[in-house]
Amino acid sequence: MLTSPPHTRPGCARSVCEHTPAVTRHSRTRLRNLCGYPKRVTFPVVGMVGGGQLARMTHEAGIPLGIQFKLLSDTPQDSAAQVVSEVVLGDYRDLDTLRDFARGCDVITFDHEHVPAEHLATLEADGVVVRPGRAALAHAQDKGVMRAKLDEIGAPSPRHRIVADPADAVAFAAEGAGEGGGDGFPIILKTVRGGYDGKGVWFVRSEEDAHDAFKAGVAVLAEEKVDFARELAANIVRSPHGQAVAYPVVESRQVDGVCDTVIAPAPELSDELAGQAQELALRIAKELDVVGHLAVELFETRDGRILVNELAMRPHNSGHWTQDGAITSQFANHVRAVLDLPLGDPRPRAKWTVMCNVLGGDYPDMYQGYLHCMARDPQLKIHMYGKDVKPGRKVGHVNTYGDDLDEVLERARHAADYLRGTIVE
Amino acid sequence: MLTSPPHTRPGCARSVCEHTPAVTRHSRTRLRNLCGYPKRVTFPVVGMVGGGQLARMTHEAGIPLGIQFKLLSDTPQDSAAQVVSEVVLGDYRDLDTLRDFARGCDVITFDHEHVPAEHLATLEADGVVVRPGRAALAHAQDKGVMRAKLDEIGAPSPRHRIVADPADAVAFAAEGAGEGGGDGFPIILKTVRGGYDGKGVWFVRSEEDAHDAFKAGVAVLAEEKVDFARELAANIVRSPHGQAVAYPVVESRQVDGVCDTVIAPAPELSDELAGQAQELALRIAKELDVVGHLAVELFETRDGRILVNELAMRPHNSGHWTQDGAITSQFANHVRAVLDLPLGDPRPRAKWTVMCNVLGGDYPDMYQGYLHCMARDPQLKIHMYGKDVKPGRKVGHVNTYGDDLDEVLERARHAADYLRGTIVE
Repeated sequence: MLTSPPHTRPGCARSVCEHTPAVTRHSRTRLRNLCGYPKRVTFPVVGMVGGGQLARMTHEAGIPLGIQFKLLSDTPQDSAAQVVSEVVLGDYRDLDTLRDFARGCDVITFDHEHVPAEHLATLEADGVVVRPGRAALAHAQDKGVMRAKLDEIGAPSPRHRIVADPADAVAFAAEGAGEGGGDGFPIILKTVRGGYDGKGVWFVRSEEDAHDAFKAGVAVLAEEKVDFARELAANIVRSPHGQAVAYPVVESRQVDGVCDTVIAPAPELSDELAGQAQELALRIAKELDVVGHLAVELFETRDGRILVNELAMRPHNSGHWTQDGAITSQFANHVRAVLDLPLGDPRPRAKWTVMCNVLGGDYPDMYQGYLHCMARDPQLKIHMYGKDVKPGRKVGHVNTYGDDLDEVLERARHAADYLRGTIVE
Repeated sequence: MLTSPPHTRPGCARSVCEHTPAVTRHSRTRLRNLCGYPKRVTFPVVGMVGGGQLARMTHEAGIPLGIQFKLLSDTPQDSAAQVVSEVVLGDYRDLDTLRDFARGCDVITFDHEHVPAEHLATLEADGVVVRPGRAALAHAQDKGVMRAKLDEIGAPSPRHRIVADPADAVAFAAEGAGEGGGDGFPIILKTVRGGYDGKGVWFVRSEEDAHDAFKAGVAVLAEEKVDFARELAANIVRSPHGQAVAYPVVESRQVDGVCDTVIAPAPELSDELAGQAQELALRIAKELDVVGHLAVELFETRDGRILVNELAMRPHNSGHWTQDGAITSQFANHVRAVLDLPLGDPRPRAKWTVMCNVLGGDYPDMYQGYLHCMARDPQLKIHMYGKDVKPGRKVGHVNTYGDDLDEVLERARHAADYLRGTIVE
């Protein structure tokens, strides 16, 4: 009953199933006419922990499915709390809050990876359906656990190890100095927990640079500074019964450690490397038993290899282009996956789709920019998050699509810069 | 600054502007840096009167724009009330309720045409921005007013007049008997107010048949029974500053007076007739000063003419295909229009898009059908309204798109029938 892959060419969007699906013709005819009218349709309740823009856009994608969406949010001003009907205000770090919230939900999923692992374990012991589950999320919550698992399954990572102190970081650098000698710097240091968007990550050129990383009292992972040609992301969605869909591999351009532009598909990426990246993401999802959207952020090295940079087990910035550029968005497929519904087609609807993040800038009232941006480009797709503008904060994104990459890039860039206030015409 | 029409071929989607737009480069640079951080972005509040599926889908379309959406709904179980954050429960027939609701909104718009005209007049006198306005809505609220206005502007209608009683209906029929003689039946009778989806409409073959129409105590409009080849809809969106966009003309297939299937664009419609239909809809919108989405339901006669059947001044069932089949959906453009923002591109994204309504049937639990429908067709777009299933009630719709019309039609038909329970495989 499950669909055959819409594309089988390596590097294209694809749909796969790991095993014979448990989906058979179901005997709903027997149930007919047993119920009176009117009857409320028994659609499931999806509980989303965290009220950020990912929750907001997941709610938007869930509306057409008729599911009930329940939100656990810190404040009523949170991005998703502004648009969701059923909002529970509370702290996701508090177990009782989580348990109360879970009671009314058929499945729990996440806007972020910060729910304490011990709470996830308790919820699962309570019988709550948590997707992705605690065991999978452990790899997204702790970069040390993630690297160890990737090594175990033979997934390519940058050279890395946990380092104990600045002197150990110097030793780690020296281990990579190679035959040419030198000190092996620069290297990257990351706290294993709590980092995002460039926070918790240090570019380290000397022992002195290394001190900051150890101040948080969290274990520190050292990684080689990869000489990458560019960054890619291989995004897939996997369901509990083992169906998975792979989106086209995208190029992700970062500015100051924050995602700035995503191009789908990644320009001039060979079918071979694209296929490798998708296979890698599908394998990671299976080995780690990920359910829902998995973003595998990758380095493409100058010598034509791919290395895993980060994992995210939720809808991801590198997949925002799918809202307007794919047949099924990452948000819709995430909802379908956590409900164990058959997944939607991940293929692109346009030759090129470009996403540019809209960051907070000097100009706080972005709505005023709508007049110009919408008049200039009637095809522009704007996605704002309802967040307060703070300099550098992600407050929205724009998507553009079309046949000419330069033009599609220019349109997205212009709109993002205009909304931010970087340009005025 | 406004866009030039994306297509100018008659019958294609198009964008026009009635006069030189008042949109000029605005001097927002002067406003820079006058405000502290963080600052909430001053996005407008759109107030929607009525909690049906049109409000639900308008909210969905408004989320990416970051606007605030406020709903006046009868009950918390209403389709839109289930998914909107800010819901006011109250009766739209009560003036005080409307006034209280309007106080927190920058603009008021509608899920239906049933708000009493005198209340709309009061709101406008209060200074509330009502879009579409009372004067325009009068034509959608009263079929007698609508026909009189269409006659005045020379828009083609079926032969019609207000009839006083069953005997007068007989006289009306005889007036159309023509040279061939006979009694001129069948004719159509409609109450001028309160009808929708085939309700308030009678197919009348004799004087005896005519009695029911007069029972409501509402004025009755008689219309010739048009010998139509098919029904079309010309949908446009118009903004207060006079910009308008026209969607491709669609074919609308009715079953028992209820919209069943919409095909975009209408197959084998000549460019000339499509162009005429769009020009007619644009002219009606301008002459009646419609703001927002206007659906002009049309008869295409067997001798190649178009006649106006009905007008709807809100997002409309014949425009649901635009959610997945057009660059900008009718819902997004309705929001943009009522906020006087530049309108989005109405062009189609696929060669063919088909919408089929999902009606309530024997089987109350439509969610169970998801497994089959999603597995069978990973490209299927489902839109459910969260409504109780009652036989014949519109509870959702599906959209499909592609290059082969027969296949696209079959996919939509299958999914709608399966969800309803008419078929089981």
